[in-house]
Amino acid sequence: MPVHSTRLAALRDQLARQQLDGFIVPLTDEHLSEYVGAYAQRLAWLTGFGGSAGTAVVLTDGAAIFTDGRYTLQVREQVSAADWTYVDVPQTPVAVWLAAHAPAGARIGYDAWLHPQIWVDDTAAALAATGAVLVAVDANPVDAIWADRPAPSPAPLTVQADAHAGVPSAAKRAAIADWLVARRADAVVLSALDSIAWLLNIRGGDVDHTPVALAYAILHADGATDLFVAPGKIDDAVRQHLGNAVRLHDRTAFAAALHDLAGKRVVADPAGSVAAIVQVLAAGGATVVAERDPVLLAKAIKNPVEIAGHRAASARDGAALTRFLHWAATTCPAGTETELSAAAKLLEFRQATGCLIDTSFATISATGAHGASPHYHVTPESDAPILSGQLYLIDSGGQYADGTTDVTRVLPIGPPTPEMRDRFTRVLKGHIAIATAVFPDGTCGGQIDALARAPLWQAGLDYGHGTGHGIGAYLSVHEGPQRIAKPDYPGGQALEPLRAGMMLSNEPGYYKAGEYGIRIENLLLVEPRTIPGGDPDRAMLGFETLTFAPIERDLIDPALLTPHEIAWLNAYHATVTQIIGTQLDGEVLQWLLEKCAPVG
Amino acid sequence: MPVHSTRLAALRDQLARQQLDGFIVPLTDEHLSEYVGAYAQRLAWLTGFGGSAGTAVVLTDGAAIFTDGRYTLQVREQVSAADWTYVDVPQTPVAVWLAAHAPAGARIGYDAWLHPQIWVDDTAAALAATGAVLVAVDANPVDAIWADRPAPSPAPLTVQADAHAGVPSAAKRAAIADWLVARRADAVVLSALDSIAWLLNIRGGDVDHTPVALAYAILHADGATDLFVAPGKIDDAVRQHLGNAVRLHDRTAFAAALHDLAGKRVVADPAGSVAAIVQVLAAGGATVVAERDPVLLAKAIKNPVEIAGHRAASARDGAALTRFLHWAATTCPAGTETELSAAAKLLEFRQATGCLIDTSFATISATGAHGASPHYHVTPESDAPILSGQLYLIDSGGQYADGTTDVTRVLPIGPPTPEMRDRFTRVLKGHIAIATAVFPDGTCGGQIDALARAPLWQAGLDYGHGTGHGIGAYLSVHEGPQRIAKPDYPGGQALEPLRAGMMLSNEPGYYKAGEYGIRIENLLLVEPRTIPGGDPDRAMLGFETLTFAPIERDLIDPALLTPHEIAWLNAYHATVTQIIGTQLDGEVLQWLLEKCAPVG
Repeated sequence: MPVHSTRLAALRDQLARQQLDGFIVPLTDEHLSEYVGAYAQRLAWLTGFGGSAGTAVVLTDGAAIFTDGRYTLQVREQVSAADWTYVDVPQTPVAVWLAAHAPAGARIGYDAWLHPQIWVDDTAAALAATGAVLVAVDANPVDAIWADRPAPSPAPLTVQADAHAGVPSAAKRAAIADWLVARRADAVVLSALDSIAWLLNIRGGDVDHTPVALAYAILHADGATDLFVAPGKIDDAVRQHLGNAVRLHDRTAFAAALHDLAGKRVVADPAGSVAAIVQVLAAGGATVVAERDPVLLAKAIKNPVEIAGHRAASARDGAALTRFLHWAATTCPAGTETELSAAAKLLEFRQATGCLIDTSFATISATGAHGASPHYHVTPESDAPILSGQLYLIDSGGQYADGTTDVTRVLPIGPPTPEMRDRFTRVLKGHIAIATAVFPDGTCGGQIDALARAPLWQAGLDYGHGTGHGIGAYLSVHEGPQRIAKPDYPGGQALEPLRAGMMLSNEPGYYKAGEYGIRIENLLLVEPRTIPGGDPDRAMLGFETLTFAPIERDLIDPALLTPHEIAWLNAYHATVTQIIGTQLDGEVLQWLLEKCAPVG
Repeated sequence: MPVHSTRLAALRDQLARQQLDGFIVPLTDEHLSEYVGAYAQRLAWLTGFGGSAGTAVVLTDGAAIFTDGRYTLQVREQVSAADWTYVDVPQTPVAVWLAAHAPAGARIGYDAWLHPQIWVDDTAAALAATGAVLVAVDANPVDAIWADRPAPSPAPLTVQADAHAGVPSAAKRAAIADWLVARRADAVVLSALDSIAWLLNIRGGDVDHTPVALAYAILHADGATDLFVAPGKIDDAVRQHLGNAVRLHDRTAFAAALHDLAGKRVVADPAGSVAAIVQVLAAGGATVVAERDPVLLAKAIKNPVEIAGHRAASARDGAALTRFLHWAATTCPAGTETELSAAAKLLEFRQATGCLIDTSFATISATGAHGASPHYHVTPESDAPILSGQLYLIDSGGQYADGTTDVTRVLPIGPPTPEMRDRFTRVLKGHIAIATAVFPDGTCGGQIDALARAPLWQAGLDYGHGTGHGIGAYLSVHEGPQRIAKPDYPGGQALEPLRAGMMLSNEPGYYKAGEYGIRIENLLLVEPRTIPGGDPDRAMLGFETLTFAPIERDLIDPALLTPHEIAWLNAYHATVTQIIGTQLDGEVLQWLLEKCAPVG
């Protein structure tokens, strides 16, 4: 029997032992992380699915795997059709499928440490109509049968120095404590790994690409904080940095500590924390105050030191990327490079800065038709040669102690077609519309998203992803609470008001299935704007572009640009030469100057 | 004692008799109508407040009146500060104020026939924290003391002929019945007056400006409908039109009929219907299915006959407006006209069409600083002379059997300032951005709203209202479910996908307090668009402008317009001359041709 069939059968036996008629297997961890460690890869272990997002539902008589449009092909290649039904989300949500397939009276298990409370509430409500019930398990049945499950990463904690963090942890903790006092709450439970890392000015190495450590924290209204983390991760330097106001506990002591908050008013995030936290708090006798993790907004608004750090990281990263772009422009037309070899070359240039700690996500190195998958992940099996006539798309970023970068550029290999230039120029017009947007304080990303799409819409085109995500300061490459996307983006991120100090990506694109992909991505800083002659009482905001690398002139049709757009492009390229040019010389510098010469 | 003080004291006595510690007085009727008849003007009778939106809360020891920014001045002029506290909404919602001011254990009364269930749920939850309870009254205490309360209007029903309605009532009822069957529901309760008028192809005269009759309806899954309306409103023609499948009942029999739906699954709108409907259904033993009024979407998507009717109404109305604009341009500079005399003149021109049934709302005739109040309502007390140096704003519409119109134009009286031209031209750029928008099927108004604002935002300016509302076909001048506004617009209207056949206004503006107001309003039809070269599977939509009257060229600075914008303006004015010109002659036609000559 194939290995995954054996595992599925074993899980069904285990469900019977736990008196369950079904079980739900998400792809996340106890912190609802976007990227998770090997120990939490239950979905991949059970099904063979290697994508970054998905859910499995196992019933006695059937099993289904839920994936979105990015993985329609991949799930069919990796997961056995004999054992699994493929279901598309969001078209068919897990709760809707369960309501249609769970037998009346069925007991459907879930691990309350792997789902937020809002998911539990919604799914239980959907099941109620069928007479099935949702049951929180005492122990995850997948873990019971996963004999060689990896242990959580033992990576040590490190201190994020104030010289990079900008604000000492004690001041951050005092501000959150004030927030608690204003709400008459006694404590807040933090489980998002980047929230804890930001609050305590610590970093870790437990998750690929994101410098965080597996931990929980409880911050009290007096500012004192309980940190729950594996003891082996902490050395004397970290211990001294944290000080006496941060009490250290083993990560395994967390649930008992929640239970001990009896009689307290405790803030927990119903969407950003797992349901178990809410459930254990309530069972222990605490009053749960359902509010968003207060660190989210504080972390999103970068302080001057973080902004200065990002400028330095961005200048360094932009020079490495520019060296790569020059290399690709001169090397790839020969047809000897591939997606993997190019990604390795870019990593070399970034490593040569001497400052790279990690890439900020798995590099998207995609040529030709692969570029039409916005989240393409190159593997040895998929690796394709970069050939003349193609567009080559590279979306990548670095983790540096002073900042996290994320940038996308597209190169034509050989002469581009007129259609490619038309599409690229429309994407550029949308990119410029965001870069030059001015808007009142209080405006949310859902209001300005269409500015990036309008030039494509006019031609009957669009792209199927958001326009911009928040980004951390040597933290997660994707962070909330803000986002530039359609207003119905999950979690209300596109309805979050943009505020001065927030950072966002600006990454409109266009994808032609089977042929090519285009995306132009820079990072933006939200900044206050004073407009002479504007309404005196109306505070306005705008963006400063913080990413510096040439935007491929051979893909731009200047005839499609307005004078205002041409002026932006030329001013941007002048800034690129100022910031990047001083780090280059010789042939690369000459190439940069040619690529950044005024257009139009 | 002033009359309103006497009434307030009498209400407090009545509350004591009903064992209540407080009572909430909204400004609406049993149908949650935007405009209400004299019999339902409880707020005005109790407080003296004459605005179109507000709420009063009377407690034993205090009373508060809640109004929005439009009425900040008016409420202080009309309502006694000795008796009432002024509270601003939305800054301080009624529920928040109540939670802060209602004594612990207080019984706060409300009339369940005047609030939606979602309001009841939210307010009860807010009060729960204080220990006060929200109590539905058996009889409205204001009515108990309002001795000379007007009776509801006796206006008769009329038949809206199929030649205007486009779809026979029986077919509309069958479609809604199918919708019920698909939801396994037995019936739907309709209480929105325009929903009932549309469904049954009837009109009425019970509400100013809106041709609807006070009625309720229950439509069953077999298509049979119970209509509850005062018997005196129905003549033989209406009776014959409605036929046997529409059973007639007195409006007073409605609650008993709800109570009789025991055991049925009955759809009621938790936001668009009053809470009493939900409460009586539940008390009677029906299962309430909380869904939006299914007529809303069906009514919003105009059929070809309604669209053709609107074109005819719009051409007729546009000619009347153009005659007025010519009159105003030639007469007003002499300084002898006022806001009221000008509004009367416009009404004359509309009446001269021979087709005007009513204005579609109280005409906004506002000169100079009055124009800076977007909802300014001229009265004999406020009536101001129209003087040189001012901008004169006229926002008006007509009710015709074949369509409802709504249009705003602005005229300079004497030479405008450069600032006025700059602001007007920016408003026009926003208007054109909406008029020429192309967007994928599924796009909502909240996504495109910023297109109208961006030219103002760039100058540090904005306007404090939405960009576009739906409009009825010889029905309400404001109708849902769609709207072009910021995504957080109440009721989710700005998140409603736009669909081909919907109609919307396009009315960006700019308001300079104490000086002038600008608004350019046309109506739009959403239509499918085929874009050559666009993605083949991506259905696109766009707008056709359906309002025809010159946009004042003397207020336009062509140097601020792009070639694309100038092309739109000239094409629009060419269409105006085609459609309006054939209805005019002599001096007015000559004036129109000059006003519509190409710009730039």
